[in-house]
Order: sequence, then C-alpha cells, then structure tokens
Amino acid sequence: MTLLRLLVALFCAAAAAAHGVVAAESDGDGKHGDLITSLPGLEKMPDFKMYSGYVTVDKDHGRALFYFFAESQNDPSTDPIILWQQGGPGCSSLVGMMTENGPLRAKVGKKGGVAIDINGWSWNRFANVLYVDAPAGVGFSYSNTSSDYNTNDTKTAIDNYAFLQGWFDKFPQFANQSIWLTGESYGGNYVPQLAQQIITGKDKSLSSRLKGFAVGNPVFSCDAWKATQGNIQANLYYWHGLIPLSIYNEWEQTGCARPYPPSDCDAIMKRMTEMVGDNFDPDNLFSDLSLGNATLGVGPVVPPNETVYALRNTWLNQKDVQAALHVHDDKRKWVTCCAEPGQSGGHCQLNYTNHWADILPLYRLFFDKRPDLRILVYSGDLDIATCPFAYAQLCLSELGYTATRQWQPWRVPGGANQTAGYVEVYPRFTYATVKGAGHEVPQFQPAAAFHMVSKFINASFP
Amino acid sequence: MTLLRLLVALFCAAAAAAHGVVAAESDGDGKHGDLITSLPGLEKMPDFKMYSGYVTVDKDHGRALFYFFAESQNDPSTDPIILWQQGGPGCSSLVGMMTENGPLRAKVGKKGGVAIDINGWSWNRFANVLYVDAPAGVGFSYSNTSSDYNTNDTKTAIDNYAFLQGWFDKFPQFANQSIWLTGESYGGNYVPQLAQQIITGKDKSLSSRLKGFAVGNPVFSCDAWKATQGNIQANLYYWHGLIPLSIYNEWEQTGCARPYPPSDCDAIMKRMTEMVGDNFDPDNLFSDLSLGNATLGVGPVVPPNETVYALRNTWLNQKDVQAALHVHDDKRKWVTCCAEPGQSGGHCQLNYTNHWADILPLYRLFFDKRPDLRILVYSGDLDIATCPFAYAQLCLSELGYTATRQWQPWRVPGGANQTAGYVEVYPRFTYATVKGAGHEVPQFQPAAAFHMVSKFINASFP
Repeated sequence: MTLLRLLVALFCAAAAAAHGVVAAESDGDGKHGDLITSLPGLEKMPDFKMYSGYVTVDKDHGRALFYFFAESQNDPSTDPIILWQQGGPGCSSLVGMMTENGPLRAKVGKKGGVAIDINGWSWNRFANVLYVDAPAGVGFSYSNTSSDYNTNDTKTAIDNYAFLQGWFDKFPQFANQSIWLTGESYGGNYVPQLAQQIITGKDKSLSSRLKGFAVGNPVFSCDAWKATQGNIQANLYYWHGLIPLSIYNEWEQTGCARPYPPSDCDAIMKRMTEMVGDNFDPDNLFSDLSLGNATLGVGPVVPPNETVYALRNTWLNQKDVQAALHVHDDKRKWVTCCAEPGQSGGHCQLNYTNHWADILPLYRLFFDKRPDLRILVYSGDLDIATCPFAYAQLCLSELGYTATRQWQPWRVPGGANQTAGYVEVYPRFTYATVKGAGHEVPQFQPAAAFHMVSKFINASFP
Repeated sequence: MTLLRLLVALFCAAAAAAHGVVAAESDGDGKHGDLITSLPGLEKMPDFKMYSGYVTVDKDHGRALFYFFAESQNDPSTDPIILWQQGGPGCSSLVGMMTENGPLRAKVGKKGGVAIDINGWSWNRFANVLYVDAPAGVGFSYSNTSSDYNTNDTKTAIDNYAFLQGWFDKFPQFANQSIWLTGESYGGNYVPQLAQQIITGKDKSLSSRLKGFAVGNPVFSCDAWKATQGNIQANLYYWHGLIPLSIYNEWEQTGCARPYPPSDCDAIMKRMTEMVGDNFDPDNLFSDLSLGNATLGVGPVVPPNETVYALRNTWLNQKDVQAALHVHDDKRKWVTCCAEPGQSGGHCQLNYTNHWADILPLYRLFFDKRPDLRILVYSGDLDIATCPFAYAQLCLSELGYTATRQWQPWRVPGGANQTAGYVEVYPRFTYATVKGAGHEVPQFQPAAAFHMVSKFINASFP
C-alpha cells in the first residue's frame, strides 16, 4: 500500500483517469446467448443458472455494460433481484462476484492453474443477484466512442437506469419481481443515484418494484464530514494504537479536532500517516496480520500469485474464461479498478469526475417521496481509513433523526452467540456495523454479511 | 463475560477474597527432588530440563511458593533467567506457562483426555524461564497459617524477594546469571515492586544481576489516569464501533472528557457498557470472533470442555499431573485466578488488598538509582477494556520524557514484512505495541511476543 494510495483512500474513494480507444461490437446476443454453459476450472456446473453478457445503453455510441447474473438457489421465479455495484469509481463488480458475495471462488487447481468453487455464503442462496460493470470503461464494459470514457456520477446513474431497463427487456420473466440495490464504497454514491433515477424516472414498473437498498462502507461527502474529516482519521489512528500519544496531543492542542481546523493540521496529519507506516491497509486494519487463530503467521506465507486476488485476476484474463463469459473478445485486459497510473488497477479507459456531491439530500428525497423504501447502511469496523464507520455515522447523524431502536449487538444463527456487529434503527433507515470486517464486508465476514442482508430484505433484521 | 467482570476489568485488575485453612507439608525437597521426570500426556520428555516444586518463604508460618522452571533450550549455563509473574492479583503463573509464553501446551489427546505438546514459541528457547505462583494462596502456593492469605502488594514483594533468594540457594549453578523480571496485567505492579526490593535489598548479587524488566498491558494507577479514566474507555468503545455516536456526543457534551468529570458521567458510562453488551471480552476485542481467516466461524465450534483453557485446567487438576509436578498432594483445586465469588476463579484462599499505589514513583526511582536497568512496557492493542495501550501511554507520558527514537512500526523476521506493532524509545524505557494481540500478548501473538522479548533482552529491539 503506497502512501499515495493511503492518502487518496482517506478521502474514501479513488479518483480515476486515463484515455484510450477500443474497438467494440454490437450487443446483439439475446438472453439465451448469455447463458453460461461451462466455466473453465469449474468441474461441474451448479444447479442454479448463470448468465453474462452485455446490455447496450447507447446504440449510437456503441456503449454497452457487462453484467453477470446468478439465479437464486432458492426460487428464482419469486425471489427478489439484488443489483450489486462495486466502488472506486472504476472498480468492476466482478470483484464482488468473485471475492465477496458472489457464487464463484478461485483457488489453486489440483494440477496447477486456477480452479473454481461455489461460495457457500453467496447471496444467490436467497436472491437473484445481478452484478454490473459500470460505467463503460470499467471491468468488461466498453464504448465504441472514446469520449464516453469521460464520465461522471450523473452519466453513470443514467446509464445504470438504461441498463436495468434493457436487462429486464432481455429477461422478461423477472419483470414482476422486487428489486433491491446494493453496493459498497463508491457504490454508496451509485446506489442512491440510481435509486433517484428509478423513483423519478418514466418506468413506473421499476419504481414500484424498488423496495429499498443497502450500502456498505459508503462514500457520503456530507457537510459534517467536510468540516472535520481529518479529526475522524486522527482519532481512528490513535485509538487503534497506530500513532503515539504525543502527536495525538499535538493534534488536539493545535485545534485540529475542531470543525474547520487551522491549516497546520495538514502537516500533522501527514506526519501521523508516516508514523502509521507504509505497511498498512486502509481497507482492513488486520489485512496482513490475522492469518488464522489471531496469530502472526510466521508459518507458510501465501505466494503473491496464489492469493485469492491473484487467482481471480488470472482466471478472468484467461481467453477461455472470457469466451465462456461472453466477453467481447477484443476488449482490453480485465483489471479490478480503473485508476490513476500508479494506483491499484493502473492505467485504463476511464476519466471519471467525482462530483463529491453531498449525498444526504438524496436520502431526504427518499424519506419524503418514498418512505416505504427500506434503507440499510452498514460498516465493517476494521475499515479505519477508507470509509470508516465513524464517517458514516457522522453523516447519518446530520439527517437529524433519533434512533427508535437503541444500539445493540446483533448475532448470527449458529455463531455461538458471538456478537456479529451492532445495529440501531432510525425512523427511515437502519444502521449496522459488522464486527471484524474490513472495507469489503462480505469478503471479511461472509457469514455475517449473508445473514444481515438476507434478513434485512426479509424484514427480519435486526 | 459478566457485566460485573467487565466493570471490574475496566479498572485493570480483579479484586480477590475468601478465607480458609489448608494443611501443608514442609518444603524439604532439594533441587533434584524437583526435577520433572515425566509428564502425563507428554509422549517424550523434551531435550531441556524442567523443575517444579516449592520454596519456603516463611518457615515459622509454613508459607511456600510454588514454581515451575524450564531450562533454556539454547544454553542454560549462560542464558539469562527470566522470572514471569501473572496478573490478577490472584492468578497463577501456570496460566502464562501453559497458554502464553511457556513450553507446555494442552490439546485433545488421540484417545481422549488431555495430551501435551511443546510450544514452538516458548521463551525458554532463549532463556531459563521461572514461573512463580505468588502470593501464597495463588495457584499451588500455600501457607499453613491461614492469616497469611490476608495479604497485599508489600507483603507479596517481600515474599517474591525471599522466593528468589531461596530459589537461587536451591539452584546455585544459576547464581551468576543475569536476571530479567517479566509479567503482565497486575504483574505490572508485582514486577516493579519486586525490582524495588532487589535494588534496595541486602542481596547485592541479586541486585547486580538484575538487568531490567518487561511488563505487558500493565496496571499503573497513575494520577493522569485517575483524573480521566472513564474518558479512555469511552473513546476506545466509540472508535472501535462498540457504541453509537449519540452517546459518545452526550459523553463529550456532558463534560466527561475533561479531567475530574461530573458525577453524571458514571451513569453514561454504565449505559455505554450496557450497549457494548454482555458478549464482549474486555481482554480481547475479537476473542469470540476471529476464528481463522478473519471469518465469523459458523463452522465447527469448539466444545467448551475442549478449549485450550479447559484442557489446561483439567490437566493441572489431574492427580497424576500434580504428582509429576511435585504439588503437595493435599492442596486445593488449581484455579486460574483467586477472585471474588462469581468472578473467574471463584472462591479461594486469598484476601488481597490492592494498594492502588501510583507506580510511577518506582519508575522514577529506577531511572535515578539504576539508570542501567532496561525497561520495556508493551501493550497488546486489542485489549481495549482491561489494561488498554492508551492507559499505559497516558501514564508513561506523565513521566515527562520525550522520545529519542520516534514511534515507528516494528517487524518480525519471516513475518512477510507485516507490521507486528509499533515502538518508541525514551531515554529510560521503551514502549511497544503488539498489533492484533489481546491482554495476554504471548497467547494472541506468540511469534511477535517471542521476537520482541528475545530481542529486547539482547539489546536488539527495536
């Protein structure tokens, strides 16, 4: 984790840049052409159906979004549709599909190479789950018009809305099922922005079927945070034992804990970040540590090319895999995130302008226009420098509501009565933490995330 | 973990009570009688020698302290002697020996029962390690004079000093080797109090051989902490996601963050503690959670009678084990800690008066009279409600020193460049954290604790 990455991460998002041109094909494939009939590395196809391919969102420009769809293992004909949106901006939702809440898991094959397992905590055990790479330029999505790669929040929300309409045209058998939007990190922007498109858009069916949304460790950019952002970080550092008392005292005595602190505080924060050190993952306090049984593993270390990330990346870039997934075969290399050169994901086809708009007015709009929408905001509590729980809580507090069900632990069935996190219920939304989870909650605490979300959409959480 | 236990734990110690009378034998056994020749559950005796038995500290009263001694696996004739003292007050040092830094580890036997392994991270790989049950009434230690069970810090320090002299009389071959005192929790009181006895006592050999000490998550009871103790707890709770922003704001707005806060704060702290919930281990934030691979284990749960604690307790109470350890056979049941009825350890032979004396004057005494002593204070950073790092740091800051080597990460050889913790060096002491460790550091991060302490006594840490 470079210092640059860390500093950027502190603002709970990664900017994205880079230009380029790709050739592209027309969408064309119908639903049946999108059925996945075999997958390299997967010995036996599972009992549920999977589809992947493209939905064209702008025919004139040749702009098409890639999706992966896993039918429910329960009852696909009645279970809800969950849309999942990754963060970034610029990250592919296949990250969620393959290392968080999706059905496929990469592992080392018995004869080398990458093999695939089915994830026991996949959300498609209770819902039909739809992963979309948005905007064009992300993952396997693309445009024939290179200027489309200059994009932003508004354009993305409009494309996501067009995608959903096009996807239901392709899959009319799901046209009456309820819809939930989910996502994490910058998905905390995408999801409410798409929800706004849906509830204010022309497609009344989509709007009436939208039941709610859930966002994990979301980007907010609210006013309360803008006034005091460094202070949350300084406190999280100090109270996790990452910086010494001396610099924490200096921070407070310089007045950096107050809203709109003096400019000297930037230099103190820079020194704090240096003290934390390079070998720190802002997404997860214990990324490099908790190697089983809370022991610093000086036993076998996983070689870099055998991590679950590396195996996923290798597999998604195999030509046979891309063919099985119906990826248009002249697309560029799949990368986790389109980001600035030097950042994770490197240089690719996206120049995204973050609006950094305050997201709370959208929440107020939902509370006013669609009080029936059920909203869950959750935070993995070990994400202490990307989108920490304290940041979400501060922004939500700006909405001015008082909890109707007091903060309390929640538990997971079969979890030996362990505290899986905490939850409080407000008149128009629920806030929960997931204990021991980093930024990508379903990756770090898959059982907890599974139970929390499945119960939430079934109105039994908490 | 009961609420009572939690509230007591917040004060970084557990009181102890109970009276009783035991019959006892004379000490009598010489060194050779103390050699352990076999151990039930251990297939093959290791290459290093182990001894256990008693040292009489008061002949008239029949007061004797039990010890367990593991010779170094390296070179017992030149390696230093490390004395280990458990916390409480009232806890047996066999806790450290069997579940922290000692050589023996209990596990489920192949044919049922308890089997014993040798711990690969035992500190006797680099030192001769001596575990003592003190004061009388703790572990296997006892007195024939029941009034001796009414004791306190001063009496304990005097007995520990007498123990050390008596132990070296029994083992004259170690009479020239350097001595290091170590301990954790309430051991943070015992260790400097014993060091004071040694450097002010008549035994000049003991004093000249004392090279320093190391205390983990120690009790301090300093003035700075007494002024603001609740505030450290409130902040640790909030910044670990255990209580909501609303009550944290209430805490601050009521003035509870200031030194000597208003009495209203007690009620707020009580509500905070209730919100954290019963299923919370003050010793380790993730005790009940991190079951391997940062996943909430909904897989197999270890039956209560097969935990490492339960196996240790069973084994130490087997009659054949007690005979092999030369425990006087009419002693009462071994319990981890002598504590008040209802607390961990239950009702046993100890009525300990905590002096709650400020420990910093002893540190100033060492800095003044014995500036050559090397002192390490370390904190497992996941102990957030027993003796947290922030409490140690606050007390140490009251000493008024400025770090000569700035706070920075430290690493473990072979640890894949992971940050094992942070360290800062002051003119007269070193302070370190151990990342991902609870209150009992060598239990939760055995490799990190091993490297930190072995390097410290070899003057190569950090």
